[in-house]
Amino acid sequence: MDRERHWKEVEQMILEMKNTSEIMVDLAYSALIFQDPGIAEEVLKLEEHMDELYTKFELKVLEILQKKSEEVEEEEVLGLLRLGVAAENIADAASRMAELVIGGVKAHPVLRYAIEETEETIMKIEVDERSPFAGVTVEDAEFDEKAGISIIAIRRGNKWFINPQANLKIEPGDVLITRGFKESKDVLESFIREKRSSRSS
Amino acid sequence: MDRERHWKEVEQMILEMKNTSEIMVDLAYSALIFQDPGIAEEVLKLEEHMDELYTKFELKVLEILQKKSEEVEEEEVLGLLRLGVAAENIADAASRMAELVIGGVKAHPVLRYAIEETEETIMKIEVDERSPFAGVTVEDAEFDEKAGISIIAIRRGNKWFINPQANLKIEPGDVLITRGFKESKDVLESFIREKRSSRSS
Repeated sequence: MDRERHWKEVEQMILEMKNTSEIMVDLAYSALIFQDPGIAEEVLKLEEHMDELYTKFELKVLEILQKKSEEVEEEEVLGLLRLGVAAENIADAASRMAELVIGGVKAHPVLRYAIEETEETIMKIEVDERSPFAGVTVEDAEFDEKAGISIIAIRRGNKWFINPQANLKIEPGDVLITRGFKESKDVLESFIREKRSSRSS
Repeated sequence: MDRERHWKEVEQMILEMKNTSEIMVDLAYSALIFQDPGIAEEVLKLEEHMDELYTKFELKVLEILQKKSEEVEEEEVLGLLRLGVAAENIADAASRMAELVIGGVKAHPVLRYAIEETEETIMKIEVDERSPFAGVTVEDAEFDEKAGISIIAIRRGNKWFINPQANLKIEPGDVLITRGFKESKDVLESFIREKRSSRSS
Protein backbone atom coordinates (compact mmCIF):
# COMPACT_ATOMS: atom_id res chain seq x y z
CA MET A 1 0.00 0.00 0.00
CA ASP A 2 2.69 2.40 1.11
CA ARG A 3 4.77 1.37 -1.85
CA GLU A 4 1.92 2.05 -4.23
CA ARG A 5 1.63 5.54 -2.87
CA HIS A 6 5.35 6.21 -3.32
CA TRP A 7 5.31 5.15 -6.94
CA LYS A 8 2.18 7.12 -7.61
CA GLU A 9 4.03 10.20 -6.40
CA VAL A 10 7.04 9.46 -8.61
CA GLU A 11 4.72 8.98 -11.57
CA GLN A 12 3.06 12.35 -10.96
CA MET A 13 6.44 14.04 -10.67
CA ILE A 14 7.61 12.59 -13.97
CA LEU A 15 4.51 13.79 -15.75
CA GLU A 16 4.93 17.23 -14.20
CA MET A 17 8.60 17.49 -15.20
CA LYS A 18 7.78 16.42 -18.75
CA ASN A 19 4.95 18.91 -19.08
CA THR A 20 6.89 21.72 -17.44
CA SER A 21 9.93 21.34 -19.68
CA GLU A 22 7.75 21.13 -22.80
CA ILE A 23 5.86 24.28 -21.87
CA MET A 24 9.17 26.03 -21.16
CA VAL A 25 10.38 25.29 -24.70
CA ASP A 26 7.13 26.63 -26.10
CA LEU A 27 7.26 29.80 -24.03
CA ALA A 28 10.95 30.39 -24.68
CA TYR A 29 10.46 30.39 -28.45
CA SER A 30 7.46 32.68 -28.07
CA ALA A 31 9.41 35.08 -25.87
CA LEU A 32 12.23 35.24 -28.39
CA ILE A 33 10.06 35.60 -31.44
CA PHE A 34 7.77 38.24 -29.96
CA GLN A 35 10.68 39.85 -28.04
CA ASP A 36 8.51 39.61 -24.96
CA PRO A 37 10.50 39.86 -21.68
CA GLY A 38 7.30 39.18 -19.69
CA ILE A 39 6.99 35.72 -21.19
CA ALA A 40 10.74 35.19 -20.78
CA GLU A 41 10.43 35.95 -17.04
CA GLU A 42 7.79 33.24 -16.75
CA VAL A 43 10.21 30.76 -18.32
CA LEU A 44 12.77 31.56 -15.61
CA LYS A 45 10.08 31.19 -12.93
CA LEU A 46 9.20 27.82 -14.42
CA GLU A 47 12.88 26.89 -14.24
CA GLU A 48 12.78 27.51 -10.47
CA HIS A 49 9.67 25.32 -10.28
CA MET A 50 11.46 22.67 -12.32
CA ASP A 51 14.51 22.76 -10.02
CA GLU A 52 12.33 22.21 -6.97
CA LEU A 53 10.44 19.45 -8.71
CA TYR A 54 13.66 17.76 -9.73
CA THR A 55 15.13 17.85 -6.23
CA LYS A 56 11.92 16.41 -4.75
CA PHE A 57 11.91 13.74 -7.45
CA GLU A 58 15.51 12.70 -6.74
CA LEU A 59 14.89 12.53 -3.01
CA LYS A 60 11.75 10.46 -3.51
CA VAL A 61 13.51 8.00 -5.81
CA LEU A 62 16.41 7.61 -3.39
CA GLU A 63 13.98 7.16 -0.50
CA ILE A 64 12.36 4.25 -2.35
CA LEU A 65 15.77 2.75 -3.07
CA GLN A 66 16.78 2.95 0.59
CA LYS A 67 13.88 0.77 1.69
CA LYS A 68 15.66 -2.40 0.83
CA SER A 69 12.62 -4.51 1.49
CA GLU A 70 11.09 -3.39 -1.74
CA GLU A 71 11.77 -5.14 -4.99
CA VAL A 72 13.46 -2.36 -6.87
CA GLU A 73 16.24 -2.93 -9.35
CA GLU A 74 19.02 -0.41 -8.92
CA GLU A 75 19.46 -0.19 -12.65
CA GLU A 76 15.85 0.84 -13.08
CA VAL A 77 16.24 3.52 -10.48
CA LEU A 78 19.27 4.82 -12.37
CA GLY A 79 17.07 5.05 -15.46
CA LEU A 80 14.58 7.17 -13.57
CA LEU A 81 17.28 9.50 -12.26
CA ARG A 82 18.67 9.93 -15.76
CA LEU A 83 15.23 10.78 -17.06
CA GLY A 84 15.19 13.56 -14.49
CA VAL A 85 18.55 14.88 -15.75
CA ALA A 86 17.33 14.73 -19.34
CA ALA A 87 14.19 16.71 -18.53
CA GLU A 88 16.34 19.23 -16.65
CA ASN A 89 18.61 19.61 -19.70
CA ILE A 90 15.65 20.54 -21.84
CA ALA A 91 14.43 23.03 -19.25
CA ASP A 92 17.94 24.55 -19.05
CA ALA A 93 18.10 24.99 -22.80
CA ALA A 94 14.76 26.80 -22.70
CA SER A 95 15.99 29.03 -19.87
CA ARG A 96 19.09 30.02 -21.79
CA MET A 97 16.84 31.05 -24.66
CA ALA A 98 14.71 33.14 -22.28
CA GLU A 99 17.82 34.79 -20.84
CA LEU A 100 18.72 36.05 -24.31
CA VAL A 101 15.45 37.97 -24.38
CA ILE A 102 15.86 39.38 -20.88
CA GLY A 103 19.46 40.27 -21.68
CA GLY A 104 18.07 42.45 -24.44
CA VAL A 105 19.43 40.56 -27.42
CA LYS A 106 17.90 42.31 -30.39
CA ALA A 107 16.39 40.16 -33.04
CA HIS A 108 16.15 41.12 -36.65
CA PRO A 109 12.53 41.85 -37.69
CA VAL A 110 12.69 38.72 -39.85
CA LEU A 111 11.67 36.84 -36.71
CA ARG A 112 8.31 38.56 -36.70
CA TYR A 113 7.69 37.64 -40.30
CA ALA A 114 8.55 34.05 -39.46
CA ILE A 115 5.90 33.86 -36.79
CA GLU A 116 3.30 35.31 -39.09
CA GLU A 117 3.32 31.96 -40.82
CA THR A 118 2.50 30.05 -37.69
CA GLU A 119 -1.07 30.00 -36.53
CA GLU A 120 -0.78 29.94 -32.79
CA THR A 121 0.52 32.35 -30.23
CA ILE A 122 1.29 32.30 -26.51
CA MET A 123 -0.16 34.99 -24.29
CA LYS A 124 0.39 35.97 -20.68
CA ILE A 125 -2.75 37.28 -18.99
CA GLU A 126 -2.59 38.88 -15.56
CA VAL A 127 -5.88 38.42 -13.73
CA ASP A 128 -7.05 41.18 -11.41
CA GLU A 129 -10.35 41.51 -9.56
CA ARG A 130 -12.09 43.10 -12.50
CA SER A 131 -10.86 40.54 -15.03
CA PRO A 132 -13.57 38.41 -16.68
CA PHE A 133 -11.51 35.38 -15.67
CA ALA A 134 -11.48 36.09 -11.92
CA GLY A 135 -13.61 33.56 -10.03
CA VAL A 136 -14.23 31.47 -13.14
CA THR A 137 -13.13 27.83 -13.54
CA VAL A 138 -10.54 26.86 -16.16
CA GLU A 139 -13.24 24.97 -18.01
CA ASP A 140 -15.57 27.97 -18.15
CA ALA A 141 -12.77 30.31 -19.21
CA GLU A 142 -11.83 27.96 -22.04
CA PHE A 143 -15.40 27.28 -23.00
CA ASP A 144 -16.08 30.95 -23.63
CA GLU A 145 -15.82 31.07 -27.40
CA LYS A 146 -15.34 34.79 -27.39
CA ALA A 147 -12.14 34.44 -25.39
CA GLY A 148 -10.92 31.58 -27.60
CA ILE A 149 -8.04 30.45 -25.41
CA SER A 150 -6.54 27.29 -24.04
CA ILE A 151 -4.89 27.66 -20.62
CA ILE A 152 -1.61 25.76 -20.54
CA ALA A 153 -0.39 26.95 -17.14
CA ILE A 154 -1.40 29.13 -14.21
CA ARG A 155 1.06 30.77 -11.84
CA ARG A 156 -0.24 31.74 -8.39
CA GLY A 157 2.66 33.46 -6.64
CA ASN A 158 5.37 30.79 -6.66
CA LYS A 159 2.96 27.93 -7.20
CA TRP A 160 2.38 26.53 -10.66
CA PHE A 161 -0.53 24.61 -12.12
CA ILE A 162 0.72 22.98 -15.31
CA ASN A 163 -2.10 21.88 -17.65
CA PRO A 164 -4.53 22.90 -14.90
CA GLN A 165 -7.58 20.80 -14.13
CA ALA A 166 -10.92 21.86 -15.59
CA ASN A 167 -12.49 22.60 -12.20
CA LEU A 168 -9.67 24.78 -10.85
CA LYS A 169 -11.00 28.25 -10.04
CA ILE A 170 -9.00 31.20 -11.34
CA GLU A 171 -8.24 33.79 -8.66
CA PRO A 172 -7.36 37.48 -8.79
CA GLY A 173 -3.56 37.72 -8.88
CA ASP A 174 -3.18 34.62 -11.04
CA VAL A 175 -1.05 34.76 -14.16
CA LEU A 176 -2.49 32.71 -17.00
CA ILE A 177 -0.27 31.35 -19.76
CA THR A 178 -2.53 30.69 -22.70
CA ARG A 179 -2.31 29.44 -26.23
CA GLY A 180 -4.62 30.72 -28.90
CA PHE A 181 -4.90 31.54 -32.53
CA LYS A 182 -3.11 34.69 -33.57
CA GLU A 183 -6.24 36.32 -34.88
CA SER A 184 -7.96 35.76 -31.55
CA LYS A 185 -5.43 37.88 -29.65
CA ASP A 186 -7.15 41.15 -30.57
CA VAL A 187 -10.56 39.63 -29.95
CA LEU A 188 -9.42 38.44 -26.53
CA GLU A 189 -8.04 41.85 -25.60
CA SER A 190 -11.26 43.64 -26.50
CA PHE A 191 -13.25 40.91 -24.71
CA ILE A 192 -11.25 41.56 -21.51
CA ARG A 193 -11.64 45.36 -21.84
CA GLU A 194 -15.37 45.09 -22.44
CA LYS A 195 -15.99 42.73 -19.50
CA ARG A 196 -13.79 44.82 -17.22
CA SER A 197 -15.79 47.94 -17.90
CA SER A 198 -19.09 46.13 -17.31
CA ARG A 199 -17.73 44.80 -13.99
CA SER A 200 -16.66 48.23 -12.81
CA SER A 201 -19.96 49.90 -13.64
CA MET B 1 14.66 42.00 -54.59
CA ASP B 2 17.68 39.84 -53.98
CA ARG B 3 17.66 41.00 -50.39
CA GLU B 4 14.02 40.00 -49.98
CA ARG B 5 14.84 36.52 -51.18
CA HIS B 6 17.73 36.16 -48.71
CA TRP B 7 15.58 37.11 -45.76
CA LYS B 8 12.78 34.85 -46.90
CA GLU B 9 15.26 31.98 -46.79
CA VAL B 10 16.45 32.93 -43.29
CA GLU B 11 12.85 33.12 -42.14
CA GLN B 12 12.10 29.63 -43.48
CA MET B 13 15.22 28.25 -41.79
CA ILE B 14 14.22 29.73 -38.43
CA LEU B 15 10.77 28.19 -38.64
CA GLU B 16 12.28 24.84 -39.61
CA MET B 17 14.79 24.89 -36.74
CA LYS B 18 12.05 25.79 -34.27
CA ASN B 19 9.73 23.05 -35.50
CA THR B 20 12.51 20.46 -35.71
CA SER B 21 13.74 21.06 -32.16
CA GLU B 22 10.20 20.98 -30.78
CA ILE B 23 9.43 17.70 -32.52
CA MET B 24 12.72 16.27 -31.22
CA VAL B 25 11.68 17.03 -27.63
CA ASP B 26 8.33 15.37 -28.22
CA LEU B 27 9.88 12.27 -29.79
CA ALA B 28 12.62 11.99 -27.17
CA TYR B 29 10.12 11.85 -24.32
CA SER B 30 8.05 9.30 -26.23
CA ALA B 31 11.11 7.16 -26.92
CA LEU B 32 12.05 7.17 -23.25
CA ILE B 33 8.58 6.54 -21.90
CA PHE B 34 7.76 3.73 -24.32
CA GLN B 35 11.37 2.46 -24.25
CA ASP B 36 11.29 2.60 -28.03
CA PRO B 37 14.77 2.63 -29.64
CA GLY B 38 13.17 3.04 -33.09
CA ILE B 39 11.76 6.44 -32.12
CA ALA B 40 15.05 7.32 -30.39
CA GLU B 41 16.94 6.63 -33.66
CA GLU B 42 14.67 9.10 -35.43
CA VAL B 43 15.57 11.74 -32.85
CA LEU B 44 19.27 11.26 -33.66
CA LYS B 45 18.50 11.45 -37.39
CA LEU B 46 16.63 14.69 -36.73
CA GLU B 47 19.70 15.94 -34.87
CA GLU B 48 21.76 15.44 -38.04
CA HIS B 49 19.11 17.32 -39.98
CA MET B 50 19.22 20.07 -37.35
CA ASP B 51 23.02 20.32 -37.59
CA GLU B 52 22.87 20.76 -41.35
CA LEU B 53 20.09 23.29 -41.04
CA TYR B 54 22.03 25.22 -38.43
CA THR B 55 25.20 25.37 -40.51
CA LYS B 56 23.25 26.54 -43.57
CA PHE B 57 21.50 29.13 -41.41
CA GLU B 58 24.77 30.51 -40.03
CA LEU B 59 26.33 30.72 -43.48
CA LYS B 60 23.28 32.47 -44.88
CA VAL B 61 23.22 35.03 -42.04
CA LEU B 62 26.93 35.75 -42.44
CA GLU B 63 26.52 36.06 -46.20
CA ILE B 64 23.88 38.75 -45.67
CA LEU B 65 26.14 40.54 -43.19
CA GLN B 66 29.05 40.52 -45.63
CA LYS B 67 27.10 42.46 -48.22
CA LYS B 68 27.84 45.76 -46.63
CA SER B 69 25.55 47.63 -48.95
CA GLU B 70 22.56 46.30 -47.08
CA GLU B 71 21.14 48.01 -44.07
CA VAL B 72 21.70 45.34 -41.50
CA GLU B 73 22.54 46.07 -37.90
CA GLU B 74 25.28 43.84 -36.63
CA GLU B 75 23.57 43.54 -33.29
CA GLU B 76 20.44 42.18 -34.91
CA VAL B 77 22.46 39.60 -36.77
CA LEU B 78 24.03 38.56 -33.48
CA GLY B 79 20.50 38.03 -32.14
CA LEU B 80 19.71 35.74 -35.04
CA LEU B 81 22.89 33.72 -34.54
CA ARG B 82 22.12 33.32 -30.86
CA LEU B 83 18.63 32.11 -31.68
CA GLY B 84 20.28 29.42 -33.74
CA VAL B 85 22.47 28.38 -30.80
CA ALA B 86 19.45 28.33 -28.50
CA ALA B 87 17.49 26.08 -30.87
CA GLU B 88 20.54 23.82 -31.16
CA ASN B 89 20.74 23.57 -27.35
CA ILE B 90 17.20 22.32 -27.19
CA ALA B 91 17.86 19.80 -29.95
CA ASP B 92 21.00 18.61 -28.12
CA ALA B 93 19.09 18.08 -24.89
CA ALA B 94 16.54 15.97 -26.79
CA SER B 95 19.35 13.95 -28.39
CA ARG B 96 20.91 13.19 -25.03
CA MET B 97 17.55 11.87 -23.89
CA ALA B 98 17.32 9.66 -27.00
CA GLU B 99 20.83 8.36 -26.41
CA LEU B 100 19.75 7.08 -23.00
CA VAL B 101 17.18 4.87 -24.70
CA ILE B 102 19.60 3.61 -27.33
CA GLY B 103 22.22 3.02 -24.65
CA GLY B 104 19.73 0.64 -23.07
CA VAL B 105 19.02 2.58 -19.90
CA LYS B 106 16.27 0.61 -18.25
CA ALA B 107 13.36 2.56 -16.94
CA HIS B 108 11.21 1.47 -14.09
CA PRO B 109 7.72 0.39 -15.21
CA VAL B 110 6.35 3.44 -13.39
CA LEU B 111 7.11 5.32 -16.62
CA ARG B 112 4.48 3.31 -18.45
CA TYR B 113 1.89 4.10 -15.83
CA ALA B 114 2.76 7.76 -16.15
CA ILE B 115 2.03 7.80 -19.84
CA GLU B 116 -1.28 6.10 -19.34
CA GLU B 117 -2.53 9.37 -17.98
CA THR B 118 -1.60 11.30 -21.09
CA GLU B 119 -3.93 11.07 -24.02
CA GLU B 120 -1.62 11.21 -26.98
CA THR B 121 1.06 8.97 -28.30
CA ILE B 122 3.77 9.18 -30.94
CA MET B 123 4.06 6.43 -33.52
CA LYS B 124 6.62 5.58 -36.17
CA ILE B 125 5.10 4.03 -39.29
CA GLU B 126 7.29 2.55 -42.01
CA VAL B 127 5.54 2.74 -45.35
CA ASP B 128 6.11 -0.05 -47.85
CA GLU B 129 4.44 -0.62 -51.21
CA ARG B 130 1.53 -2.45 -49.69
CA SER B 131 0.89 0.15 -46.99
CA PRO B 132 -2.45 1.95 -47.18
CA PHE B 133 -0.48 5.19 -46.98
CA ALA B 134 1.70 4.59 -50.06
CA GLY B 135 0.77 6.95 -52.88
CA VAL B 136 -1.67 8.89 -50.71
CA THR B 137 -1.31 12.60 -49.89
CA VAL B 138 -0.73 13.74 -46.32
CA GLU B 139 -4.16 15.33 -46.33
CA ASP B 140 -5.89 12.11 -47.40
CA ALA B 141 -3.94 10.02 -44.90
CA GLU B 142 -4.97 12.38 -42.09
CA PHE B 143 -8.51 12.70 -43.32
CA ASP B 144 -9.08 8.96 -43.05
CA GLU B 145 -10.96 8.78 -39.78
CA LYS B 146 -10.21 5.11 -39.42
CA ALA B 147 -6.50 5.83 -39.29
CA GLY B 148 -7.00 8.75 -36.91
CA ILE B 149 -3.49 10.20 -37.12
CA SER B 150 -1.79 13.52 -37.53
CA ILE B 151 1.51 13.38 -39.43
CA ILE B 152 4.11 15.58 -37.71
CA ALA B 153 7.11 14.59 -39.83
CA ILE B 154 8.11 12.40 -42.76
CA ARG B 155 11.62 11.06 -43.32
CA ARG B 156 12.55 10.08 -46.87
CA GLY B 157 16.07 8.68 -46.66
CA ASN B 158 18.07 11.59 -45.24
CA LYS B 159 15.52 14.17 -46.23
CA TRP B 160 12.98 15.44 -43.69
CA PHE B 161 9.60 17.03 -44.16
CA ILE B 162 8.70 18.69 -40.85
CA ASN B 163 4.97 19.46 -40.51
CA PRO B 164 4.57 18.29 -44.12
CA GLN B 165 2.30 20.12 -46.53
CA ALA B 166 -1.17 18.69 -47.14
CA ASN B 167 -0.53 17.91 -50.80
CA LEU B 168 2.76 16.03 -50.29
CA LYS B 169 2.43 12.48 -51.62
CA ILE B 170 3.60 9.70 -49.30
CA GLU B 171 5.99 7.27 -51.03
CA PRO B 172 6.96 3.67 -50.30
CA GLY B 173 10.08 3.77 -48.13
CA ASP B 174 8.91 6.85 -46.21
CA VAL B 175 8.95 6.81 -42.43
CA LEU B 176 5.99 8.66 -40.92
CA ILE B 177 6.17 10.16 -37.45
CA THR B 178 2.60 10.52 -36.28
CA ARG B 179 0.71 11.70 -33.27
CA GLY B 180 -2.58 10.16 -32.31
CA PHE B 181 -4.77 9.23 -29.42
CA LYS B 182 -3.58 6.24 -27.45
CA GLU B 183 -6.74 4.29 -28.07
CA SER B 184 -6.35 4.76 -31.81
CA LYS B 185 -3.01 2.93 -31.90
CA ASP B 186 -4.61 -0.52 -32.01
CA VAL B 187 -7.24 0.69 -34.46
CA LEU B 188 -4.49 2.06 -36.69
CA GLU B 189 -2.52 -1.17 -36.60
CA SER B 190 -5.51 -3.29 -37.58
CA PHE B 191 -6.40 -0.72 -40.26
CA ILE B 192 -2.92 -1.09 -41.79
CA ARG B 193 -3.06 -4.90 -41.62
CA GLU B 194 -6.49 -4.99 -43.21
CA LYS B 195 -5.60 -2.60 -46.03
CA ARG B 196 -2.32 -4.43 -46.65
CA SER B 197 -4.05 -7.75 -47.12
CA SER B 198 -6.61 -6.21 -49.48
CA ARG B 199 -3.77 -4.66 -51.51
CA SER B 200 -1.90 -7.93 -51.85
CA SER B 201 -4.93 -9.95 -52.92
